Amino acid sequence: MTRQELCDQIRIKKSFLCIGLDSDPAKIPHHLRSFPDPVFEFNKRIIDATHDLCVAYKPNLAFYEAQGVRGWTSLERTLEYIPREQFIIADAKRGDIGNTSALYARAFFETLGCDAVTVAPYMGRDSVQPFLNYPGKWVILLALTSNEGSLDFQMKVAEGVPLYEKVIRQAAEWAGPDELMFVVGATHPEKFDEIRKLAPDYFFLVPGVGAQGGDLEAVCRYGMNDEVGLLVNSSRGIIYAGDGPDFDLKARAAALEMQANMKKVLEMKGF
Amino acid sequence: MTRQELCDQIRIKKSFLCIGLDSDPAKIPHHLRSFPDPVFEFNKRIIDATHDLCVAYKPNLAFYEAQGVRGWTSLERTLEYIPREQFIIADAKRGDIGNTSALYARAFFETLGCDAVTVAPYMGRDSVQPFLNYPGKWVILLALTSNEGSLDFQMKVAEGVPLYEKVIRQAAEWAGPDELMFVVGATHPEKFDEIRKLAPDYFFLVPGVGAQGGDLEAVCRYGMNDEVGLLVNSSRGIIYAGDGPDFDLKARAAALEMQANMKKVLEMKGF
Repeated sequence: MTRQELCDQIRIKKSFLCIGLDSDPAKIPHHLRSFPDPVFEFNKRIIDATHDLCVAYKPNLAFYEAQGVRGWTSLERTLEYIPREQFIIADAKRGDIGNTSALYARAFFETLGCDAVTVAPYMGRDSVQPFLNYPGKWVILLALTSNEGSLDFQMKVAEGVPLYEKVIRQAAEWAGPDELMFVVGATHPEKFDEIRKLAPDYFFLVPGVGAQGGDLEAVCRYGMNDEVGLLVNSSRGIIYAGDGPDFDLKARAAALEMQANMKKVLEMKGF
Repeated sequence: MTRQELCDQIRIKKSFLCIGLDSDPAKIPHHLRSFPDPVFEFNKRIIDATHDLCVAYKPNLAFYEAQGVRGWTSLERTLEYIPREQFIIADAKRGDIGNTSALYARAFFETLGCDAVTVAPYMGRDSVQPFLNYPGKWVILLALTSNEGSLDFQMKVAEGVPLYEKVIRQAAEWAGPDELMFVVGATHPEKFDEIRKLAPDYFFLVPGVGAQGGDLEAVCRYGMNDEVGLLVNSSRGIIYAGDGPDFDLKARAAALEMQANMKKVLEMKGF
């Protein structure tokens, strides 16, 4: 999917919501557990109930890998089921030496057909480059993550700037905003202003709103650019909003609340 | 597997060789391609031909994920086939927020039954901790990797020390040498001396010997501790040593050459 197509979807749906499919078999409503593939049934109903409210889905690979072959089967079925106009992000946080990253790129872009993959920057340029060799596909590079551990290394100052800033500056030399985005956690709202100045044209994937405590309003105030430039993710806050037979309606209500807030911001900013 | 058991295997086999199962379907000898599961057949023959010469196998997840469900099936079959006395490393380079890393830990330690998993440190302590909650299982944390991109961030000086050193110092506060190892690439032999001083009791997993140009002799000279403390990996140099019907014999010959060199070093050092 191109940047233009993504921006069009955001305007059409008045939403920059990404829904994280962190689908844990242990948290799936009881009435779905007798299905042959409960994780797929769960995802299918979440997608049916929310796809008009979001522009992206983000399956988190860990939740599928924990189930082995069975989990990968659920994942492949889920990806086939997601409507074509959605931007699909494999939240995989991969990154390895060049010949290995090339295989991961094949896994996510060819085998699974995703639009984007999250990549960890620790191993540097040649670990990221193979993911950039696919036209129309995206790298979403970890910059400043939403967890407490983001303070351990990402905030350390090297050559006068914190590591996450170094990562953004370097990566912006490797790829432009048509193929690269950055992960910037909503739990650091005070940083959005400077990070946006650092990378004015890039999309940010923003986790940490909801269960992790991030604030949508602050993220929008400091993080938006003139194309919106944000994909705000919620996982647990939407998909586990309910756990009964009406879990999909509860998920829709939670997604609708976020989308309504996004719509308000978009209209206020004249989109 | 405990550290003592691993050290015992090293003494018994006179080897600290780890063989990387980077098994790419496109590089598998032609005569195996008509098997229902060529990757498993390939791995099976490599394991049969080399298991008395090495103490560890390291399947690289990317090569299996690139084949989707099929690849995960080959991986599970391979892991079941590896003899019990081998130390099995899932080379996955994972790392995510806590609840997600917990699921990756389940994937590699419970679902796949591996002894160790490689973890990327960028997201900090709470991304590593869930992997440490398994007695007898290991985290192998990326410190200084073997690729060119290791210069991009790992070598940047923050608070007076390069990032990889910061990672080692911090992680050594999180876990001891009975559950934590570090990845230190053989392509930086000049660094082994200081890294060994920094982490005297930890095992290092050393990639980059062979195809990537690292030098075994230099690694041993500066990297060994009084328990050996090294697992030296070779992937392509062994598993693709031949590509005909005798590929397994060629792989054995390549592994034997490395093991013979290791044996020499071990005897010279009095192990």
